[in-house]
Amino acid sequence: MTIPKRYQFFNRTEFLRRLTATKTEMANKGIDILLVRNTANITYLTGYTSDTSYVPQFLVVDAREEEPTFFVRSIDVGGARHLSFMASERVVDYPETYIGNPHTDGFDFIADRIGAQVRGKKIGLELASLTYPQAAKLLQVFGTDRVVDASLLVDWLRLIKSDAEISVMRRAARIAEAAVDKAAELIRAGALECDVAAEVLAVQARGLPDARSVTLPMPFIASSPRTGAPHFNWTSDRYDIGTQVNAEIGGSCERYCTGIMRTFHIGAPPERLLRLHAAEMEGLEAALAAARPGNTCSDVASAFQKVINRHGFEKQSRCGYAIGIDWIEYTASLQAGDTTILQPNMTFHLMLGNWIDEDFGYVLSETIRITDGNAETLTNAPRILHVQ
Amino acid sequence: MTIPKRYQFFNRTEFLRRLTATKTEMANKGIDILLVRNTANITYLTGYTSDTSYVPQFLVVDAREEEPTFFVRSIDVGGARHLSFMASERVVDYPETYIGNPHTDGFDFIADRIGAQVRGKKIGLELASLTYPQAAKLLQVFGTDRVVDASLLVDWLRLIKSDAEISVMRRAARIAEAAVDKAAELIRAGALECDVAAEVLAVQARGLPDARSVTLPMPFIASSPRTGAPHFNWTSDRYDIGTQVNAEIGGSCERYCTGIMRTFHIGAPPERLLRLHAAEMEGLEAALAAARPGNTCSDVASAFQKVINRHGFEKQSRCGYAIGIDWIEYTASLQAGDTTILQPNMTFHLMLGNWIDEDFGYVLSETIRITDGNAETLTNAPRILHVQ
Repeated sequence: MTIPKRYQFFNRTEFLRRLTATKTEMANKGIDILLVRNTANITYLTGYTSDTSYVPQFLVVDAREEEPTFFVRSIDVGGARHLSFMASERVVDYPETYIGNPHTDGFDFIADRIGAQVRGKKIGLELASLTYPQAAKLLQVFGTDRVVDASLLVDWLRLIKSDAEISVMRRAARIAEAAVDKAAELIRAGALECDVAAEVLAVQARGLPDARSVTLPMPFIASSPRTGAPHFNWTSDRYDIGTQVNAEIGGSCERYCTGIMRTFHIGAPPERLLRLHAAEMEGLEAALAAARPGNTCSDVASAFQKVINRHGFEKQSRCGYAIGIDWIEYTASLQAGDTTILQPNMTFHLMLGNWIDEDFGYVLSETIRITDGNAETLTNAPRILHVQ
Repeated sequence: MTIPKRYQFFNRTEFLRRLTATKTEMANKGIDILLVRNTANITYLTGYTSDTSYVPQFLVVDAREEEPTFFVRSIDVGGARHLSFMASERVVDYPETYIGNPHTDGFDFIADRIGAQVRGKKIGLELASLTYPQAAKLLQVFGTDRVVDASLLVDWLRLIKSDAEISVMRRAARIAEAAVDKAAELIRAGALECDVAAEVLAVQARGLPDARSVTLPMPFIASSPRTGAPHFNWTSDRYDIGTQVNAEIGGSCERYCTGIMRTFHIGAPPERLLRLHAAEMEGLEAALAAARPGNTCSDVASAFQKVINRHGFEKQSRCGYAIGIDWIEYTASLQAGDTTILQPNMTFHLMLGNWIDEDFGYVLSETIRITDGNAETLTNAPRILHVQ
């Protein structure tokens, strides 16, 4: 018996549009056949949302064929057929004997299987999404002169979202808002940080009636003394009067992410934190005002920096990055020197987290969409320093 | 102000023992200085549990120095100092201008910074944990003749756990058991899959009074018609009479994982599922009996296969893999042909998930420890086909 197709959020026309854009870019770079390794790019081109990239797999986009072919390990074939938009025969599996095998792996199988198809063709490889031994082997098998580095080819196409993608991101934003609300409800003196994380995760997973969650971005919930750096998971520390909590919480729908950062303080906040909050709130407005089509990514960062500098602060890290499938897209950054010109339906995590000293920092962010005019904040949680 | 050290679960002696073993292995391979990129290996050697590996970072293990040096991006320096066992000055940061910069990255900074230290030395690189462009650049900077591939050097040391690590894994197992209990309580006709996932995640994050969770392994909860493949995240489908649920649920403590798989059926299970369950239960006992020191990984898989073959079934995928920090260790596999000899305190996810047709599969697993005699099952959830 075969597995049926799942409900597909994006329709066939949407996937074919993405593939056509990919093939146009392939033609521009002289690529006949693109081997997509990057997981988010595979999600983008097929609808496949499981993360099985810890083993070899390739999505083969052949300029001459309408649908791509997805090569996965044998046990994942049902999943790939269920979740992707292509015809079932477009998902091909390699035997399980290639897994955990020090002598040969799935890339050997795939290279052999597509040998005739790629003969005499130019092959695009995402070298930055392959490990050194994987890429070295494929370069040898295909011949270095026939391989074109296509590392960010699909990634750059993902930068400008379709209206259907924006619709999904709006839903993801509703989940992120609900998760931040839950954090605001629970961050109190006496609460355990892991209990707050638990309830936030539950909200993220449950999603909302019209916002289906498939997976979630891990929340970062960093409390004193961990407020001078990001990327902390939760602890089992108990909050007390005087505890500050820097939260970076997202929502995910169909694997599209939105993020929100907010700062919480239990009891009266110290004066320095209040000053930084005021500077950042004003800086955020300036960044939003600069986030208009025609301006560059760099302009947004400059607008923010200028305001907080006037308040006596500075921010070392970038002011954000493109966001969409998964949390970070590795293309445009909101930072000095990034000359990417903003266009409608680009989406960014305007990330104003600012870790100033080892024991002092503050977080604030919104997920935004570039429009024809003023930026739209997709996320709409109360934009305050939460005093609990 | 500097950030204080967190409570450290493992003591300094434990980290120095791991480093000494690493240095011995380096000496065996003629490596003077090892640049560790693999995140789990960094956790192993330092106690750092945040996952910030999406940007360049290296742990530099110099055979001549007692403590390693951890190079991270600037905003992560506080986190690395807080979470790692080393002296604060052993965490060195590179400027944020190296992030999202298409021209130069943190590896350039690190290579430059350690230039004098590595001059004339043999350098170990985990090529399998570096992307092709990253490794190609470093090979050029250091000179190919001075680089030794050290891809699984630390990974193999992780295979045999210390008693302290086993103690952490026992705690992780208690969390996994509680999470499976929660799934068993909630999987009922009428329940939404995402609500089950939400409560499971909450249990995983909350941990237990003596089992601190820092992060968690994402649960896989696959219900009909998705029972013929693994690696499915949750959906918002509503369970009904006749729904089967294949759950792969873990617990994590200090980033050490344990996993449990159990199959649930709402209403009377079909006869084929009952037969497969009986075969697998008997196969599990045979695998456990074969999981003794002196036997090989292959012997464990053979023992399982022999039993289920007699019942008219077979399993294509491997019967498990080493488990510890994060879910999968990329060393020993419980599969035909793996001649790794079992030794006390090796730990495995004895993974008997069996996806037979696109729409038919069954899951069962335990996390086990090799002892001097009979294998110990670290996980102890009711070993039944749950009829709900």
